[in-house]
Amino acid sequence: MLSGEIQIRVRYAETDRMGLLHHANYLVYFEQARTELLRSRHASYKELEDQGIFLVVAKAEVKFKSPAHYDDVLTIRTTVTRTSQVRLEHNYEVFRDSTLIAEGSTTLACVDREGKLRAMPEWLSESK
Amino acid sequence: MLSGEIQIRVRYAETDRMGLLHHANYLVYFEQARTELLRSRHASYKELEDQGIFLVVAKAEVKFKSPAHYDDVLTIRTTVTRTSQVRLEHNYEVFRDSTLIAEGSTTLACVDREGKLRAMPEWLSESK
Amino acid sequence: MLSGEIQIRVRYAETDRMGLLHHANYLVYFEQARTELLRSRHASYKELEDQGIFLVVAKAEVKFKSPAHYDDVLTIRTTVTRTSQVRLEHNYEVFRDSTLIAEGSTTLACVDREGKLRAMPEWLSESK
Amino acid sequence: MLSGEIQIRVRYAETDRMGLLHHANYLVYFEQARTELLRSRHASYKELEDQGIFLVVAKAEVKFKSPAHYDDVLTIRTTVTRTSQVRLEHNYEVFRDSTLIAEGSTTLACVDREGKLRAMPEWLSESK
Repeated sequence: MLSGEIQIRVRYAETDRMGLLHHANYLVYFEQARTELLRSRHASYKELEDQGIFLVVAKAEVKFKSPAHYDDVLTIRTTVTRTSQVRLEHNYEVFRDSTLIAEGSTTLACVDREGKLRAMPEWLSESK
Repeated sequence: MLSGEIQIRVRYAETDRMGLLHHANYLVYFEQARTELLRSRHASYKELEDQGIFLVVAKAEVKFKSPAHYDDVLTIRTTVTRTSQVRLEHNYEVFRDSTLIAEGSTTLACVDREGKLRAMPEWLSESK
Repeated sequence: MLSGEIQIRVRYAETDRMGLLHHANYLVYFEQARTELLRSRHASYKELEDQGIFLVVAKAEVKFKSPAHYDDVLTIRTTVTRTSQVRLEHNYEVFRDSTLIAEGSTTLACVDREGKLRAMPEWLSESK
Repeated sequence: MLSGEIQIRVRYAETDRMGLLHHANYLVYFEQARTELLRSRHASYKELEDQGIFLVVAKAEVKFKSPAHYDDVLTIRTTVTRTSQVRLEHNYEVFRDSTLIAEGSTTLACVDREGKLRAMPEWLSESK
């Protein structure tokens, strides 16, 4: 299965009163991670949008096992777990060193500029 | 079951290139919604933290049905769906007018200042 | 001079490791404050954009006098301090109770959909 | 004068309805830029905080000349422009390729855990 890794350092602005990475930011990291996976393979997501192909998040799930702290360098491993003509599923694992601290998944739907479901380009729907 | 509603207007800074509320911000809205539910009932979450009682997100899930736009006034209906001595589950429904545009759930774990699981105050674990 | 006030409660996600409102969020609050001032007067900013009138931030400045904490209810007082055919200046004062904790200013430029300077509607350029 | 550069790619979540980097995020980028400058020189900011040395933003200013777009790779050049025993001033220039698209400055005050002004370590106040 298609997969890849990126590293992200936790910014001060992304922490909260507990001194930890605020949980909503994991979705931002996941988005960056799948964007870089896409770039490594075929095209930038920006180019897709410029062609009228929009990938919107239909479902997202995160399990938080252990907190991430300010200035931690996290590794996000992203895997395409399922594809169809109109949907794309990714799994994410977040590591600090070799410890898995969170995992999650998203389902993306492919829509046009008006938000109507449309088929993905073949190279994308077959990217598994 | 204990439930409540709040309204949040979508800020410009919370939208993204599609002109829609960025999906990560739903988790921020959910957090605000359960905080206000807590306040309406017993105490502010700030007071809980000041007493050494921290509620950390152990799991979060969101299903996005229809987009929210800039300047929309959304209603978030929050329900406590399950409680135990150390865990608290909420369900969230996001409405624009009478249309359900998203729903989600979170599981919170109760920890102490060092991040170790600890029992919640009874009024909280029995808040269902 | 045209002015108005709104109140914003500091969200958990907006705090940082110091337990304080992260400084970048003041610009988000200022934006919300001038948007509500506009709404109270004439029109929603959303309607302006729909008509091809975009107000972009050309300059922003903030002086932080005293920190804002999680769950504080802040009052933001906004005043239109200067207008021209293509520019709009606002001043902002942030209060917690009667204490001024921050102040700032922004200069907005009026542009069209392509980002070119254009004249504002008269009611806006004369809104001082 | 002490200076350094970092590169940051504009994330989708950081854009707004205009498709541009939302202006508040420049302050987040500036923070990351001065943090990396500090790291390149002496120590991580995290270590400073662990020693009870906190640098809080007392003033911030940004001039926006040209917009940054989604997925742009920006270069932020940071320079320490002035230091005293309790204050640290930085200047920031944001480039896309060789075009200066924004510039700004911040004044940081050195405080202790209770928020009282305190002298910086000498290596920091003499870092100009």
